[in-house]
Amino acid sequence: MASAAQVDISTVSRALRPETRNRVKPETAKRVIATADAMGYRANPFARGLKDQRSMTIGMLVPDLGNPLFPPIARGIEDGLRERGYVMILGSTDQDLGREQKLLDVFRERRADGLVLATALRSYPLLDQLVESRLPVVLVNRTVDEGRLSMVSGDDHQGIGLAVKHLVELGHRRIAFVGAALSASTGFNRYQYFLAWMQSLGLNVDQDLLVFAPWFTKDDGAAATEELIGRGVEFTAVIAASDMIALGVYRALRAHGCVVPDDVSVVGYNGSRWCDEFAPPLTSIHVPKYDIGRQAAQLLLARLDHPGTTPTNVLLPTSLQVRASTAVPA
Amino acid sequence: MASAAQVDISTVSRALRPETRNRVKPETAKRVIATADAMGYRANPFARGLKDQRSMTIGMLVPDLGNPLFPPIARGIEDGLRERGYVMILGSTDQDLGREQKLLDVFRERRADGLVLATALRSYPLLDQLVESRLPVVLVNRTVDEGRLSMVSGDDHQGIGLAVKHLVELGHRRIAFVGAALSASTGFNRYQYFLAWMQSLGLNVDQDLLVFAPWFTKDDGAAATEELIGRGVEFTAVIAASDMIALGVYRALRAHGCVVPDDVSVVGYNGSRWCDEFAPPLTSIHVPKYDIGRQAAQLLLARLDHPGTTPTNVLLPTSLQVRASTAVPA
Repeated sequence: MASAAQVDISTVSRALRPETRNRVKPETAKRVIATADAMGYRANPFARGLKDQRSMTIGMLVPDLGNPLFPPIARGIEDGLRERGYVMILGSTDQDLGREQKLLDVFRERRADGLVLATALRSYPLLDQLVESRLPVVLVNRTVDEGRLSMVSGDDHQGIGLAVKHLVELGHRRIAFVGAALSASTGFNRYQYFLAWMQSLGLNVDQDLLVFAPWFTKDDGAAATEELIGRGVEFTAVIAASDMIALGVYRALRAHGCVVPDDVSVVGYNGSRWCDEFAPPLTSIHVPKYDIGRQAAQLLLARLDHPGTTPTNVLLPTSLQVRASTAVPA
Repeated sequence: MASAAQVDISTVSRALRPETRNRVKPETAKRVIATADAMGYRANPFARGLKDQRSMTIGMLVPDLGNPLFPPIARGIEDGLRERGYVMILGSTDQDLGREQKLLDVFRERRADGLVLATALRSYPLLDQLVESRLPVVLVNRTVDEGRLSMVSGDDHQGIGLAVKHLVELGHRRIAFVGAALSASTGFNRYQYFLAWMQSLGLNVDQDLLVFAPWFTKDDGAAATEELIGRGVEFTAVIAASDMIALGVYRALRAHGCVVPDDVSVVGYNGSRWCDEFAPPLTSIHVPKYDIGRQAAQLLLARLDHPGTTPTNVLLPTSLQVRASTAVPA
């Protein structure tokens, strides 16, 4: 085959292996692949796996595939990996640590070359195990407190700033925060950044205007908002820690006869695909989900090419999407 | 190890291989696995792949992972496969045949043991190739006209019947149908069944009350509804071929000052996770998405155990979910 394509054998080998293809000139790679195709050549990933210990497989874990946050991230990773010949195996953990451990065992048994995890907690029981495995791991969306793994997420500090400033510019001063999941970096950081932005804008943070949902679900968000309303303190706007939480805020406010945005403005977080459909359409902080996936794939490929790279945090800018759930206070 | 677990070697081998585990008594399998674990045994899927030609991998293709129809189906398949040691590789095609062909090539290169496709068209250019490959294939949600592959979907005949009868019971007679994607079995069958149910209930089907969107998207649904409204014929209710189409119906009606359900009732199809959040919450036909995935996994595993089984169609019952988008006609 090398003679048919008129290049030397080592070049053919490099061109045919997706993980080394970038070391060959694009035209040469194209010519070799076309020749190989014409000759009916097809790579055997098993034989290759045995020889150089690469399965060309990346494992990804998400807490819940039905949450609209994760499919675009997964898609970005998939697209980023495919260019280098890697495929992604996807698993959902239901935020259950036992299920997560089982899926990690499956990935190990399949000799996955690396992992992308959207399931990390600030204090993550599987962290030591992951670090010790020396497997390239990239976290997406959430990170761990110890920072021993690379991570790609939206810039929550900047994002919460956009939410607070939007409400302040509309004239709101009594802004409540319906937080969630302080055990996850997203939940904890958004809460911290809310405090930071309010104070730096000279606004008082009344402790009575802070409530926390155990997890990022509509039901938990509604229960937390009930607690907030039950305290009987005045507020004209709510920042929710996620769009799911915002849906719970909507439900609890509606149950108390409050109209959004006439009585209370609401800002969500993530900018999910469905914000336009909600009643009313939800003003939200857009997180660049697909780009997070692409960048995570890049980081992982870099780790595969150069093992032992220092863990990196990549924060991507968010943007404010104003819809119908925010208005000037009554 | 056989001696530590006190069973013979062939039983140990069967118990340790997920695809033969069901030929061993559950207690024996459990004991063997526990012993193997204790002894630090770990299967090498590459060596196994070379020997018996099984990669323990199933490829799945969906048209769009962001469509809420597909994640629960994928999850059902994943759960059904995991019990037998198979993992699923997932790809999104964007309904692009070139991309679909590329992903199928990737699955073949990885020696996938079987495929689950949510991407079939009635006249499916990849059908011959798939049948000739002799790879076990199960279609989900949609099927092909030639019926040469097994398929699991909701029962659209029964589902459309539920939608029509619900509207007729409320008192509607002038019922429009906003169809979509006649090139897909779901689109075509729902249209056919609408005609069948209307006529069998003695209701006239006015051709002016039928419109068709090119694809199952909100934009296409809105454009088709614009066409319907432009005809100037009276209707008091709309059945939409999917929830996405129904969102387009909402948008077009709203643009013409029509209030749902006061002026026009709307029924969607699929019963997606978000129907409760739409404005107004959407009455829809619930398709058992997770169960479709589980059944597809079962069919595929059966095909792997007994190659050459005749293609089977499995139709699962749907149910009517009444929300706030349907009411008695004004």
